[in-house]
Amino acid sequence: MAGRTADVRALAQQAREASFALAASSAQARSGALLAAAKELEARREAIFAANALDLEAAREEGLSAPALKRLRFDEGKLADVCRGLRALAAMEDPIGRVQLRTELADGLVLTRVSCPIGVVGVIFESRPDALVQIAGLCLKSGNAVLLKGGREAAHSNAALFDALAAAGEAAGLPRGWAGLLTTREDVGEMLALDREIDLIIPRGSNAFVRYIMDHSRIPVLGHSDGVCHLYLDRGCDTAMAARVVVDAKTQYPAACNAVETLLVHRDEAGRALMVVGKALAEAGVRMLGDERAQAALGCEAATQEDWETEYLDHVISIRVVDSLEEAIAHINRYGSHHTDGIITEDAEAARTFLALVDSAGVYHNCSTRFADGYRYGFGAEVGIATGKLHARGPMGVEGLCSYKYLLEGHGDIVEDFAKERRAFTHRRLV
Amino acid sequence: MAGRTADVRALAQQAREASFALAASSAQARSGALLAAAKELEARREAIFAANALDLEAAREEGLSAPALKRLRFDEGKLADVCRGLRALAAMEDPIGRVQLRTELADGLVLTRVSCPIGVVGVIFESRPDALVQIAGLCLKSGNAVLLKGGREAAHSNAALFDALAAAGEAAGLPRGWAGLLTTREDVGEMLALDREIDLIIPRGSNAFVRYIMDHSRIPVLGHSDGVCHLYLDRGCDTAMAARVVVDAKTQYPAACNAVETLLVHRDEAGRALMVVGKALAEAGVRMLGDERAQAALGCEAATQEDWETEYLDHVISIRVVDSLEEAIAHINRYGSHHTDGIITEDAEAARTFLALVDSAGVYHNCSTRFADGYRYGFGAEVGIATGKLHARGPMGVEGLCSYKYLLEGHGDIVEDFAKERRAFTHRRLV
Repeated sequence: MAGRTADVRALAQQAREASFALAASSAQARSGALLAAAKELEARREAIFAANALDLEAAREEGLSAPALKRLRFDEGKLADVCRGLRALAAMEDPIGRVQLRTELADGLVLTRVSCPIGVVGVIFESRPDALVQIAGLCLKSGNAVLLKGGREAAHSNAALFDALAAAGEAAGLPRGWAGLLTTREDVGEMLALDREIDLIIPRGSNAFVRYIMDHSRIPVLGHSDGVCHLYLDRGCDTAMAARVVVDAKTQYPAACNAVETLLVHRDEAGRALMVVGKALAEAGVRMLGDERAQAALGCEAATQEDWETEYLDHVISIRVVDSLEEAIAHINRYGSHHTDGIITEDAEAARTFLALVDSAGVYHNCSTRFADGYRYGFGAEVGIATGKLHARGPMGVEGLCSYKYLLEGHGDIVEDFAKERRAFTHRRLV
Repeated sequence: MAGRTADVRALAQQAREASFALAASSAQARSGALLAAAKELEARREAIFAANALDLEAAREEGLSAPALKRLRFDEGKLADVCRGLRALAAMEDPIGRVQLRTELADGLVLTRVSCPIGVVGVIFESRPDALVQIAGLCLKSGNAVLLKGGREAAHSNAALFDALAAAGEAAGLPRGWAGLLTTREDVGEMLALDREIDLIIPRGSNAFVRYIMDHSRIPVLGHSDGVCHLYLDRGCDTAMAARVVVDAKTQYPAACNAVETLLVHRDEAGRALMVVGKALAEAGVRMLGDERAQAALGCEAATQEDWETEYLDHVISIRVVDSLEEAIAHINRYGSHHTDGIITEDAEAARTFLALVDSAGVYHNCSTRFADGYRYGFGAEVGIATGKLHARGPMGVEGLCSYKYLLEGHGDIVEDFAKERRAFTHRRLV
């Protein structure tokens, strides 16, 4: 099986070679391979489930938690999900070769900017076998070669899924080695050094892990370490809505990066909305840590300075009472992680100000921060969520995996003619 | 004068504060400030020319070359150029707040992706005082705060120009400290450490300098170190065109990053086009270094392996004879710097293949590589040329200085309703 060995450099070089051919491949060829992959996964269902059973057995022996086991499980439902995802990707408009700009620079000299793949992408992801299929699918759709490193707990499942994808790709005529599977932690270390072969690393995982990756590679990294998300209850907000949204953002899935960690409350709401929200949070089993005014209102524990920068990923929330909308915005821009932050308000002007001034990938009005997700945004899936401001920001789908290049087509045109004013630029926008 | 001291951290913090207000500023406010800046520069012409005279005098004493002195000179012509540039920027469509995508995620829940500034940009540029005005103008148009570090030789000129821009900005109501001027090499070192305050560094200058910057900061860097550009003469190319384009690409301005460094020639052209081009290069005073077959054809000096990765920035060119279009493409992707590479051919299919498979920011057909430039591309000017594949690629104008954010507006929407299938996503594309 091409692309499944421990020689990371060889895998990366193969992926680099494959990336050139993949960049020039037709939309049809890539869509065909996506459909073939879905078919191959279905054909190999028994082998895949058997491999997954091995992983689940080992995980149970190691005493993994029930939620962790649930994420690790790959059953008929998950298989149907990933196959539906692959077929949806195949049906999507081709993201490659799109003309983004066309300008006549001068008579007979035409500049065109077209979208193209990034090249070779390395993705490190958690112990969810379905993630392997989603990520490989997004990369293939966008014409990128990919190196995949999944969680150790899912090793058997990942190998079985990868083998199916590789076989389908080979049969569909994809360039050899377009996808490679890494298996160990050491493989990741080796990958980080291959900045000539790999164009982009997308790490998903714990804060410490992502920060380690960002600090130990010359390869560009897209992703997020912290997810310190905020909700701000503005003066005069709908208290029932505030309670519903805060409880959802905190408890619907507290381990997610888009769960809320800090609640900011306008001082006029300390005796009103905060009371209603505090009661709802208490009922949902959430531990509250407040500043002085929040403590006075709720009788909760004290928050320390450190709490404003803490991602609990648990049933814990920090609460601060602020004097104004401006103070709330300043708090978010200072202590937040530029991931996703929301305001609950009935005041359209306050909402406009918040959306304009909060410097985050997602800025929300009257809804839960938990919507920050590639599937919910309509991208099919996501390879990651980026909190930096270059290239992709927020959930990254197929579009985030594309770059562009400038094509210039002429008839022997030289710059000297323009320098000597024998010719002049027209700069006529064509597209 | 706000923003002109040696305390880099304070400047960067001021710039960060200013960046929030700038991001929310109106297109009118920014355009007004650009027009005011042009007016202020014109009003201060005498002071600016006097400052420039000081720089020129010192440069002459230090024995700077004639081309270097020419770049350093800021006279009536340069003043008119930069003022025209500022007014053209003011008239351009606003790049900020553009709706790039709007999707109804579910009934009453609407996602909008809008362009926004990156935030705080640090630009390090060469000893050309007009570059300061161009860069500050591009940043202001795109709503970014900026830290500017120009060449030491232009210190007096830069200070005078900066003071005019700062005064105009203050009068036009821009947030205090939106631009800051750094003056020493030590300032640059301090800037590289301020990854909480600065979002992006754009270094322009020598290869070694740019590589140093890339290796010594956690702040994202956009730019290019090498500019090893290629031209490939395909079988059956127009020999007169080939000679004209190669000579222009090599000699029109050899010190530029977009000048050609390596000529690749199809073997069938070694006795035809290469002879014509070699003669033209010799007449233009270009030293040629060839592989065995090029030496045999031209009787030129020998190229070593190292030459294929060398940016001469001088009247020198390396020449290699290849067996096929595919070999030329492989050479470029292997030894090039992904900057700008061209093919000279009459064969439309060969051109298509070359444009599709060469992995560079600019891929050209029948024209000089010297066209790779923001002004020539119609962007007004450029803050730099990027050879990476993330975010902006190629010459970066105003658009390259923009990011985007996702706004989500609802009515109390929570994810639990979708998880429990009480509601369904519609994902209806609105824009």
